[in-house]
Parts: sequence; structure tokens; C-alpha cells
Amino acid sequence: MSQKVPVELAKSWLLMNHGPTTLVTSSCDGVGNVMAASWAMPLDYDPPKVIVVLDFDALTCQNIEKSGEFGLQLPVGAQADMTYAVGSVSGREVNKFEKYKIKTFAAQKISVPMIEGCAAWMECKLLPDDCQKHGIFIAEVVAAYTDSEIFSDGRWHFPADPMHRTIHHTARGNFYATGELIKANVD
Amino acid sequence: MSQKVPVELAKSWLLMNHGPTTLVTSSCDGVGNVMAASWAMPLDYDPPKVIVVLDFDALTCQNIEKSGEFGLQLPVGAQADMTYAVGSVSGREVNKFEKYKIKTFAAQKISVPMIEGCAAWMECKLLPDDCQKHGIFIAEVVAAYTDSEIFSDGRWHFPADPMHRTIHHTARGNFYATGELIKANVD
Repeated sequence: MSQKVPVELAKSWLLMNHGPTTLVTSSCDGVGNVMAASWAMPLDYDPPKVIVVLDFDALTCQNIEKSGEFGLQLPVGAQADMTYAVGSVSGREVNKFEKYKIKTFAAQKISVPMIEGCAAWMECKLLPDDCQKHGIFIAEVVAAYTDSEIFSDGRWHFPADPMHRTIHHTARGNFYATGELIKANVD
Repeated sequence: MSQKVPVELAKSWLLMNHGPTTLVTSSCDGVGNVMAASWAMPLDYDPPKVIVVLDFDALTCQNIEKSGEFGLQLPVGAQADMTYAVGSVSGREVNKFEKYKIKTFAAQKISVPMIEGCAAWMECKLLPDDCQKHGIFIAEVVAAYTDSEIFSDGRWHFPADPMHRTIHHTARGNFYATGELIKANVD
């Protein structure tokens, strides 16, 4: 049975290095929101930092600017419909958690809902910076944990079923699962 | 037979949206260099911008700061060994093109060698910015083209063989090919 297991913070970059699509959760005045973000990646190893590119018009952007924190999680193939859906409507129009019946749990170090069923989760605190004028939000990862069946001991162990692998969005709802392992010659 | 076909600049973000590992080529005073970069992604649609995170100690970083331009290309599975190798040694120590027998061709709009056999290529001009203090280099894509068998008409058409798909590096030479297509419900 899968469990949420902690990832050493200095190794949390391993969760994002392969470029998966993310779900960004945020909250303001007790009201949570979630959106999809393909433009997210590591920025530094230790202390671990990530960058996420956000649209200034997005409610997520406003929430993060106000609260200074957000959740970053990696959806799997089985969550592709939900991932596309939450990336296609605004939290100003609907409560996406209710509309798409998204099950959440409380974060450990931030006041933001985190989404059940993902491959990995990172709790992030914004590092306010001039880069935000470009839509680039820099944050420090303050907690990281994974689904123990998919990632443990600093390595991914993707199952054969693409429904349980991380996903990579191209456009118009077309995702690719993280695919076959190719081991390069490291001698 | 595969050919290099141009991609409309406003659609060049489609090449990077799924988070593949990249190869960054650069040149200074007529001497070229190449390194691997997993931390690269789109920043904007039109005009198209990308961001690449670079180590200040890297020769690539110095080349780009001096010349103001770089090539960004997406290696495929068959290039995993080379991609790992050029990410593991410095251009200050060896001429990586010679050492790894990397075949190049001349870029169209910049003075940087581009690498044959990739899935897609972007020619980029640096937009100098304060973000560079974080190692975040912002650039405009001034030319983009793809292998016509893998990407055409604004869509990826990955063949079954992972050796001809784009790749996503985790760590220690472990790459994952871009995998199975998962079409989300877009109604």
C-alpha cells in the first residue's frame, strides 16, 4: 500500500528534474484554489528552490502574492482529465475542488490544500523577487514527500501502467506519460 | 526521410512544454561548446521566450554572457550517452564536439553550432536581465525548426521507438523517454 514518505530537502530537485506537469495549489483568506502549470522546474539544490511561471491574471498568482506560499504536486496519468480541467477554468468562476471532486489533505508547513493521489508533493514558500515582473515566481521548498510506491530512496520507480506515472502536457489536453527508462553510459 | 522544417515562432513553446532535457550550444571567439540542461522551459508565447538555468562556473554561461546567444535543442533517446557525457565534463578541459564526435550544422540566425540528429532546435538571443543573478537566463527564440518526422503542423508525432523520442533526465544518467500519449477529456 502506498504511503507518503518524506524526501530529504536537498534531494527534492529530483522530483522535478524530468520536467513533469505540476498542479499548483494556493489559498487566500481560507479559500483554496488549484491550477495546472507546465512551466515549473528546479532552480537550486540546497536550499532547494523552484521556479513557476504564472499568469498575472490567474487567481493563483494573486493568492501566492498575498499569502507567500503554494503547494506544488505532480499528477499522474489517472489525473490527466482533472489536470486539464483545472488548467482550463478560473477559480474566480468555480470552486474547482468541489466541481471536480478533488480530494485534498492539509499541508505540513504551509496553509494550503494538497491534492491526494499525486506522485509527489512539495510545499513552497515564495522568495519575493524582481523576477516576478516576468511572471517568474521563485520559492523555497520547505517540505517534500512522495508516494512511496513511485519514488523512494532518491529514485523513481515508475510502475508499468502509465496511469500511475507522472505526465507531461503538450497542448489541448494531450499529455505524455513519463516513458521507458534509458540508461546512459556513465563510465 | 526526415527534414528540418520551420516552426512558427509563436508556436515554438510547444517544443518545450512537455519538459524535455535540452542541449545548450554556445560559442565565443569562434570556439563552440555544448552542455546538457534539464532546467530549461518556456517563459512566454509571443514573442516566444525561454528560460535556462545555468551554473555561473560553466563555460556555457560565460559564452552566453559574452556573445548574447545560444542554441537550444532537444536530444532523442539515441543521444542519451552523448547528452549525459556533455553534461559531465567542462568545455574548458576538452573540445566536446571532437571528443564525442558530435556532428553540427550552422545556425540560421545566430553564430552558434547546432547539433544534428535532435528532435527540435531553437535559436535564442539573450535578453539581459537582473534574473541572471539567480542563474536564470531569459532569451527570445528567433528561429525554431524540427525533425519533420517527429513534429509537424504544431504537433508531436513520436515514433514507437524510444530512441527517436525526446528524453527527460532524472539523475546519474537515468533518462526517461517521452512515453505513452494520454488524451484528457477536453469537453
